[in-house]
Amino acid sequence: MSVVDLSKQVALGIDIGGTNTKFGLVNHRGQILTKGSIPTDQYSTPEAFVDALHEQIQPMIEEYCESGIEGIGVGAPNANYYRGTIELAPNLPWKGVIQFANLITAKFGQPCKMTNDANAAALGEMMYGAARGMKDFIMITLGTGVGSGIVSGGHLIYGSDGFAGELGHTIVKPGGRKHWSTGSEGSLESYASATGIAITAKKMRAEFPDSMLNQYPEEIINSKTVHECALKQDPVAIEVFRYTGQKLGEALANFVMFSSPEAILLFGGVIKAGDFILKPAKLHMERNLLPIFRNKVRLVFSELDEADAAILGASALVWEK
Amino acid sequence: MSVVDLSKQVALGIDIGGTNTKFGLVNHRGQILTKGSIPTDQYSTPEAFVDALHEQIQPMIEEYCESGIEGIGVGAPNANYYRGTIELAPNLPWKGVIQFANLITAKFGQPCKMTNDANAAALGEMMYGAARGMKDFIMITLGTGVGSGIVSGGHLIYGSDGFAGELGHTIVKPGGRKHWSTGSEGSLESYASATGIAITAKKMRAEFPDSMLNQYPEEIINSKTVHECALKQDPVAIEVFRYTGQKLGEALANFVMFSSPEAILLFGGVIKAGDFILKPAKLHMERNLLPIFRNKVRLVFSELDEADAAILGASALVWEK
Repeated sequence: MSVVDLSKQVALGIDIGGTNTKFGLVNHRGQILTKGSIPTDQYSTPEAFVDALHEQIQPMIEEYCESGIEGIGVGAPNANYYRGTIELAPNLPWKGVIQFANLITAKFGQPCKMTNDANAAALGEMMYGAARGMKDFIMITLGTGVGSGIVSGGHLIYGSDGFAGELGHTIVKPGGRKHWSTGSEGSLESYASATGIAITAKKMRAEFPDSMLNQYPEEIINSKTVHECALKQDPVAIEVFRYTGQKLGEALANFVMFSSPEAILLFGGVIKAGDFILKPAKLHMERNLLPIFRNKVRLVFSELDEADAAILGASALVWEK
Repeated sequence: MSVVDLSKQVALGIDIGGTNTKFGLVNHRGQILTKGSIPTDQYSTPEAFVDALHEQIQPMIEEYCESGIEGIGVGAPNANYYRGTIELAPNLPWKGVIQFANLITAKFGQPCKMTNDANAAALGEMMYGAARGMKDFIMITLGTGVGSGIVSGGHLIYGSDGFAGELGHTIVKPGGRKHWSTGSEGSLESYASATGIAITAKKMRAEFPDSMLNQYPEEIINSKTVHECALKQDPVAIEVFRYTGQKLGEALANFVMFSSPEAILLFGGVIKAGDFILKPAKLHMERNLLPIFRNKVRLVFSELDEADAAILGASALVWEK
């Protein structure tokens, strides 16, 4: 009778983004044994894309995993957990509903589980990061867009159709800013994403000609340059983040009254702005909460390295009960 | 060896409201064997209240349950599932944090589970009503206030502290109507409760002197009288419900993008307005949803008799896995 040595078990994590796809072999402790990437947008069919993935990854499996891998986890935009599909993803080159998990399994001969990138990130935090030991938390990813993964009672909420947890598209200001892609008015993503912050910054610098923000050309007004100006105490740049934090905090209050998490984890490029966003977000979250929820919910930053978090999250799907 | 006859098992359900407390003995099929009530607000201490409950209920148990009861479920405002407490309930006569489940168990000699009334209502719908067989749905109670119970993956969401699911207090219009009790601005409850509808109706009739609503004295402007005027095609009364439905629908869209339920169940006095509220609610829910969520979520009315639903819901806590 042999005892299974968990430390030798390895999962393949694949994170599909609009431009690049990253992958890695990950053990139970969240150590990445090896990793790589291919461009997503250079394969006109998902079949050609999966062939290219296999060509890259198979030699890595043979080199690093003497007894093979335990399974494959894939994080992708608009991925459906129940069906193993990628459905109508606006930022990927392949249209319609793609039976992606089947393609992966046929090629690699291994079971494949999929979910969207933010859900995968939440699993990664629960398995390897700041949410270890937590049963109720919400992960918010603040990048080009705003994504979310919601864990309740120790399980990701997938909902009736596998698409639950699209908090970036909840409306925080009815009739507010029109979203550049969905057309909805006043969604969280239209304010709190990097894209939304750039829009806010461009509007505000036009109103205040003295702002340092006017020293940059239009195309490099983004959350990084706004952060530079905020660090130099430019009041307009500070106000850009304060306003962003307010909208984020108002949204977070609503999320807390939904699932009463012990913590909200923030992740992504936008959080580099640190307290410029975090403090107003905390303030406006607290002031919009019912008293029974106040001063309970921790607002924390992710502990995972941003470059590896997506691979770790995808691999965590393999270990998920 | 004896086989347990489930049909003979009986649960005691107790629903505590601000004015009256209702209770009943309920079997697995949701049949109420017998029921009763006592006034809540005439007992200055929770101990005296529990004594009075026991005095009423114990003879009923002896008469109707030859082998006793399986357990006790209690629905109450601000009840905490994990701690068995009632905490800072504004509408009950007893202040502070009350160890209510312990008092019940000490008196009745039976295990006691508690949750808030809307969570109990959701369990009742799942066990005996319109949500039988559903694993993902949201129950919204539209009465004097707006309550909610959220079921995800077959389980009620209690959250980290047992207080999850306060959707009536989520903000649908930042900076909007000030809530008469919480002080928050623009919460769903301030628009979509019976109280909120009366406020909307009083405002609108003042703006439109020709409205039929002006034929009623101030104190009987409520959702019932607005409904009477709407049935007579008074455009202002119809607009009161349309506006209410819009705010409700906008909130529901956000809830759907959180947990992606297969249905939203509506319950409570306000739903007597029927399509006057339901149609605009459906319209504004759909138009605020991401395309992947559209035309999927059923908006349905509760199937449980309103007079008995609270008792049934409380009793369902006993059967909950």
